Order: sequence, then structure tokens, then C-alpha cells
Amino acid sequence: MTRPLIAAILASAFALPAFADDAELRTLAKENFEAIPMQPPQLGDSNMMTRDRVDLGAMLFFDPRMSKSGVFSCQSCHNVGLGGVDGLETSIGHGWQKGPRNAPTMLNAVFNVAQFWDGRAPDLKEQAKGPVQAGVEMNNTPDNVIVTLKSMPGYVEAFGKAFPGENDAITFDNFAKAIEAFEATLITPNSRFDQFLMGADGAMTADEKAGLALFMDTGCTACHNGINIGGNDYWPFGVVETPGAEILPEGDKGRFQVTATAGEEYVFRAAPLRNVAITAPYFHSGKVWDLREAVAVMANSQLGAELDDKQIDQIVAFLGTLTGEQPKVEHPLLPVRGPDTPKPEQM
Amino acid sequence: MTRPLIAAILASAFALPAFADDAELRTLAKENFEAIPMQPPQLGDSNMMTRDRVDLGAMLFFDPRMSKSGVFSCQSCHNVGLGGVDGLETSIGHGWQKGPRNAPTMLNAVFNVAQFWDGRAPDLKEQAKGPVQAGVEMNNTPDNVIVTLKSMPGYVEAFGKAFPGENDAITFDNFAKAIEAFEATLITPNSRFDQFLMGADGAMTADEKAGLALFMDTGCTACHNGINIGGNDYWPFGVVETPGAEILPEGDKGRFQVTATAGEEYVFRAAPLRNVAITAPYFHSGKVWDLREAVAVMANSQLGAELDDKQIDQIVAFLGTLTGEQPKVEHPLLPVRGPDTPKPEQM
Repeated sequence: MTRPLIAAILASAFALPAFADDAELRTLAKENFEAIPMQPPQLGDSNMMTRDRVDLGAMLFFDPRMSKSGVFSCQSCHNVGLGGVDGLETSIGHGWQKGPRNAPTMLNAVFNVAQFWDGRAPDLKEQAKGPVQAGVEMNNTPDNVIVTLKSMPGYVEAFGKAFPGENDAITFDNFAKAIEAFEATLITPNSRFDQFLMGADGAMTADEKAGLALFMDTGCTACHNGINIGGNDYWPFGVVETPGAEILPEGDKGRFQVTATAGEEYVFRAAPLRNVAITAPYFHSGKVWDLREAVAVMANSQLGAELDDKQIDQIVAFLGTLTGEQPKVEHPLLPVRGPDTPKPEQM
Repeated sequence: MTRPLIAAILASAFALPAFADDAELRTLAKENFEAIPMQPPQLGDSNMMTRDRVDLGAMLFFDPRMSKSGVFSCQSCHNVGLGGVDGLETSIGHGWQKGPRNAPTMLNAVFNVAQFWDGRAPDLKEQAKGPVQAGVEMNNTPDNVIVTLKSMPGYVEAFGKAFPGENDAITFDNFAKAIEAFEATLITPNSRFDQFLMGADGAMTADEKAGLALFMDTGCTACHNGINIGGNDYWPFGVVETPGAEILPEGDKGRFQVTATAGEEYVFRAAPLRNVAITAPYFHSGKVWDLREAVAVMANSQLGAELDDKQIDQIVAFLGTLTGEQPKVEHPLLPVRGPDTPKPEQM
């Protein structure tokens, strides 16, 4: 898609009428958005979400021994107590290296069209294979993960239960499948916005409703729509005006690095906005800590819109209604190491 | 206490009679040990363990924003899923620095006479103030902790509830008190050894009982006794024979660094042995990964005893019965940062 065409599509959003009452606002909102279901989705036959598999996934998600150093687990950067992020500009990994992009939340990530800022993983299973191998993150190898898992009787038993009938249950693919199954349970239903969508007029304040209307009127909805209010399509950062290099570092060309397709430079998956009020800092660069500033940057760079302070406040108020019920996760007890478990290596 | 006197005391343990039956073994064991209670102990008037205070302590314990970098929390090195340790030789902290000693478990630590390997903190409250300030660990300052906590409405509310009636509830002392209250709940009752102590003959196997008898006969009990099978007195590492520098690094003089008292060189608090089977690696140096080896080193260096393989196996089997029910901890939801919350600094 060319940039002029994208701009035309985004601009058309301005044609949306202002809402007259709650019923009309809800009707417009339901054309653009969808509520998070109260129960986690199923992944289908390819990954049956049995209790044993989800429990195994939780163990793997929280186990720092999945990293070469023994220091980092999935939870280190995708903290279930912090809206699924680490609250850092970009994550700190093996050897105190700084990662290239801000850690996205795994909450509701099952609803995204693809994973990572550039969508390079089609699903959570493929995503889970990434950080464990990345040199700047967990710096491990699939082989060492398998050796580690096979060395612990607790994991041998847990994989056997999670993947019954498989001769060789401990594989890197099953490791990723179990993590995917656990992560798919990490959804945040019943936000005040979703309550409003489902008919509760009083779930949002007048300012929040005005913010929702503005969000749609201004055209934010062109990219941020659907169940995750984003996360389901790719757009250039800087449709109308490219933000400064501080916010959009020149070295990171986004989806272009995946597709090598002309025109996809600085293209990223539209950020899912569920729980955005609790997942600062913002953008793939993690350079913006204030949600008001993030909204202003977006309006300006993507839509060429100059919002006044009150409008920004209202949109930020609306975004606050996207914070859902956070998953309650009991920290799993992790299997005891065995005599042949590889020792952590920090070098 | 002089080393010859200590050796004489330890040697006297050899005079203990072998046990004839379960009742006699239990009687001897009850003279030396005590079961972990099923409910956490109270801390007394100085720190009332209200639900609000314990819950606040859990938040603080799990919050990586208590470190300067935003990377480490108490949980990083005292993992509730790993028997309260990190499974590293010594912990990794700020800037990928390696700590000087192996991280001890906080499970049942409330029962220790004092905290840290050298007992330099009289209780868990004072202990909690250490790592948060240590340059090689969380590298923070009390001032920055307080500014951070006061910047988040969620913490302002939680401290208000946890310390009702206090005008200025957010203090470094209250921060430590809340963590102490939470940690005091982290006990591991109902181990098979405790079941045996309380009368269940069948809770331990014949080999485990033989190991218990050997543990007392050989003299291990001289240092490792009481409710935590250790943790209640100080002893030199190397009473009879000093182990190699690999296991006992020359640079770490233990309690001497605290007391500057002649004769306290290489003196450490006897390690509490609760859950020892799941908390490798061993010793303050973290240099020994195999519990069999640790038992052999201890017998040799502390008691001058050469145990045969079967005896070591039996003592290790007994130590396995000290693994209690691990606390089930729901990962707390952490307060949202505010506009004035200090940003994490990794440098």
C-alpha cells in the first residue's frame, strides 16, 4: 500500500459522524472494536490447551534456567505483575546487553495477527522460540534447552503429561507449544470499555466516552481497531510526518527487515492498546514515557492532526478504560535440577 | 570459642548411641530438632503481620522497580519457585556484576538466629535493607526507593493500609517491615521429616531413618540442629581440616568481617538445611553442586570423619526428607508508575 493511499484511508476516518448518545456511540464502537472474551480462546487441534500443557507452559515461562545464564526467564521481560512488560525502554539481557526494541506485552497477544513489533512470528509458538535463542536476551540454544529439560525428572514427567502418547515429548517445538498454551490464557477481560461495549452505559465517564468518540473521529481507529485495538495490521510509523530519530531510530527499519519489500521501511505492527495505561514506556523504541505525549506524537505523525490538551486528555481517559482484569498467576514450583543439568554460564 | 574446644564438642557427638527403633530415633531426633509449624509465626508487636502488610510486602518483594536498573527484585535471587534461591554459584546483579556469596533461601529464614551468611543482620527487616542498596545487587538508595514508592498512587494506598495511623507511612523502615512480614509467611511445613517427628513412622524410609541416625551419630547435629537444622549458631568452616580455596575462598573471612574478633576468621552461620535438596549449589561460595559432595566435604572438614558411599547416600536420603511444602504465592499485581516515578537507570 502506498503512503498517499494510506493517508487517504486514514483521512477518511475524519468523516465519521460525532455520536449523539450512548447507544449510537456503542454502535459505532462495535463496528470498530470487539470485547475480550471472559474465557481464554482455544488454539485448535494444533495445540490443545489441556490443564497439564498450560501448567507446563507456566513452569517454562517462569524458569530462569531456560536462559544460558540462569538469570532470565520469559517473565523477566513479560512480567505478569506489570501488565506483561518490564517497564524498561528496551529490555536488559545476557551480559547486561540492551535489546533493540521495547518488550511488548504477552497479555492478549493471542489475539494479535502475528507476534513481535515486525510480525516476524506468525503465532505465540514461533514467538516463544525467539528470545530464548537471542544473544542479547536469553542467549540459549535449542539443544541446551532440551538437555536442560531432559536432565530434570520434574520436566520429564510434566512433558509426558502435557504431550501424552508422544515418544519423545521433550522437543523444542513442544517447549514452545506449552508456552503458547500458557500465554493464551493470559487475557484481560472485563475492562470498563468492554463493559460499555456490552451495554453498560455507566461503565465509562463522559470524558472517557468523549475520548472514545474522538479516537474514532480522529482516525486512530484506522490502525487501532479490532479486539486488541491494534495488533492486527502493519503501518508505517510516520504516515504523515516522520517523528524525530529519538523516537524512531533510523537504524531500525521495522518490517522491511522481515519482508525486504520496498515501501515497508519503518513499517511496524500497529501497537495493541489493551492495558496501554499500565505498559509505559511506549513505541518500539520505548522512548516516550508519558501516554499524553504518545497520543500527541501518534496524532501528529500518523494523522497530521493537532489535538488540543483537552482532546488529548479525553483520548488518554478513554485509553485508561482499556485496562482489563489482570490474570492472577500462581508462581509455579519449578522442577529440581539433576546431576546432569547444565550449569548456568554467565560469560 | 577455641578450635580445640569446638572440635571436642563436635567429637562428643560421636558418643550418641545408635537407635534401636522408631520411637527411640524419634526421641533422639526431638532432642535435636523441631518441626516447622503449620502456620507462619508472628513477629510480635514490632511488626504486626496484618493481611495488608503481608500483601504489601509481596508487592515490594516482586517489584523490579525497587532496583535502580528496574531489572532486579528480591524474587530475582530468592525465587519462590526454586526453593527460595536462584540456583547460581553467586547471584548476578547490577551491571552483570557477580555477588560475593551464594544467595541463601528466605524460606523459613524467619527461624534463623540472624540473617546473611555472616549473621550481620539481626532479623529479616534489617536483611531486607541490604541487597536493595548493595552496589553489586540492586544498587538503589533508600531515598530513591522512597521517591519511587511515593510516586505511585497504588503504593501510597497500600502503605496507608499496611501502616494505618502513621502520618508518613512510606519510610525505608516500613518498606523493610512489609518485606519481613511477607517473608515470615514463607515457611515450608509438613516435610516428611517433620511428619516423622510428629509420630508418623512410615513417613521416612529405612535408609532415610538410617541417614537421620548417622546425621546425629556423626556429629552433624552439633551445628545443624533446631527448627532449621542449622541457622542458629556460628562455626568456623574447617574445624578439623580447611577445605581447598576453591570451596573456601581465602578472601572471604566470613563473620570476622562483621565482628573483627580474633578467631572468627572463616566463621559462618551454620547453613540451615531445610529444603537443602532443592537449593544447590552449596556453601557460601556456591562451588559445590552435588549434595553428596557437600556432605563429604562437611564430614571431612568439620568432623574429621570419612564417610563411606553408603553412609553418604543415607545422609543425603535423610536430607531429602527436609523438603517441605513450598509456599504457593500468587504473583502480585504491581502499582502503575506515575509521571514522577524515577526512570530505571542501567548505567
